[in-house]
Amino acid sequence: MEIKVLKDILSANEQIAERNHQLLDSKGVFAVNLMSSPGAGKTSLILETIKGLKGKTKIGVIEGDVSSSLDAEAVGKAGVPVLQINTGGGCHLDANMVSSALNNVSLPDIELLLIENVGNLICPASFALGEHRKVIISSIPEGDDKPFKYPLMFDIADAVLINKIDLLPYLKFDIESFSQAVKGMNEKAEIFPISCVTGQGIEQWVSWLLSQMGRR
Amino acid sequence: MEIKVLKDILSANEQIAERNHQLLDSKGVFAVNLMSSPGAGKTSLILETIKGLKGKTKIGVIEGDVSSSLDAEAVGKAGVPVLQINTGGGCHLDANMVSSALNNVSLPDIELLLIENVGNLICPASFALGEHRKVIISSIPEGDDKPFKYPLMFDIADAVLINKIDLLPYLKFDIESFSQAVKGMNEKAEIFPISCVTGQGIEQWVSWLLSQMGRR
Repeated sequence: MEIKVLKDILSANEQIAERNHQLLDSKGVFAVNLMSSPGAGKTSLILETIKGLKGKTKIGVIEGDVSSSLDAEAVGKAGVPVLQINTGGGCHLDANMVSSALNNVSLPDIELLLIENVGNLICPASFALGEHRKVIISSIPEGDDKPFKYPLMFDIADAVLINKIDLLPYLKFDIESFSQAVKGMNEKAEIFPISCVTGQGIEQWVSWLLSQMGRR
Repeated sequence: MEIKVLKDILSANEQIAERNHQLLDSKGVFAVNLMSSPGAGKTSLILETIKGLKGKTKIGVIEGDVSSSLDAEAVGKAGVPVLQINTGGGCHLDANMVSSALNNVSLPDIELLLIENVGNLICPASFALGEHRKVIISSIPEGDDKPFKYPLMFDIADAVLINKIDLLPYLKFDIESFSQAVKGMNEKAEIFPISCVTGQGIEQWVSWLLSQMGRR
């Protein structure tokens, strides 16, 4: 008797993520999954990105939080379409949540979809959403040892932003050794030191983003 | 036929946590579960607590991290017994990990056990370890909206430390509104603004800790 061996079966999450990806592609929407610790600056980065790309591309935002709609309110004031997902205790977004959100967003009005994941350096790394790029935001006050402590997150990143560099005069953080640690585990990751307060580095970040949209 | 209804059965984790708690009590060890976002200052707080309690109580430390032994090395240099748990991807410590650790620690040499959980403001809140107190460290750079976004963590806290107050001149953070948000969901939580850099507030924190050890 022949035993059938099924290989490479996608998990339920991966299947739905693949469907999300196809839907986004069919509508010409480029999606970015933004992940970080709580308070590293995901929402501030979204606001700076909206400013930096004004007139260059049409942006939509999905906000993921355990609770509250504070971030969606902040983004809504910037005049872009925004949808809040509350996970109600869940520690990461998953593809099914994003699928529901995509049903409630007018995709023809969007070219770039920024998805703010739940603030967590661990669990979101394991759940594809259907995104085209994964972007990690680290920040100066968190310390330069984070790649060693949360390796999976840095391993899967297409880009790593080092936020809050305006605080460098007041804190110990070695950008060089942080960058080497990231490159040591993930050679392809682009690294951008930025400040959402002074605007430093935002131009380089939005240029990279536009270039990625061109080669999706 | 009578249907039996089983009520209030402890989860496997809660059962093991209860056993840990009894073991700690039988050895006269008071255990504190320290939880925070990545980089909020758990290890720095442990180092300051060791300094602040020198000669007053015998401290042992369990370090929880996804990966690396950086924190255990830092604590070991302070001359206290320390054990590193690597969760290998797991997003929180659980009672079983702590049970294994307790088998590898000389409990008669310890009066106060500081357990540094994995850096994560969500998952660790749902897993009892057998501790006597749960302490949350928030920090100024994370922003003052965290109680609204991660309510469970703040709901279960016996004490909430606001770390990095030395950065207050450079960042927006309203200690009053943060404290009101915490008290609104958890009236009994003690709140201590501290800085592990300047030492501000550490005396109040270690006094509280000693007072809690007296009334375990």
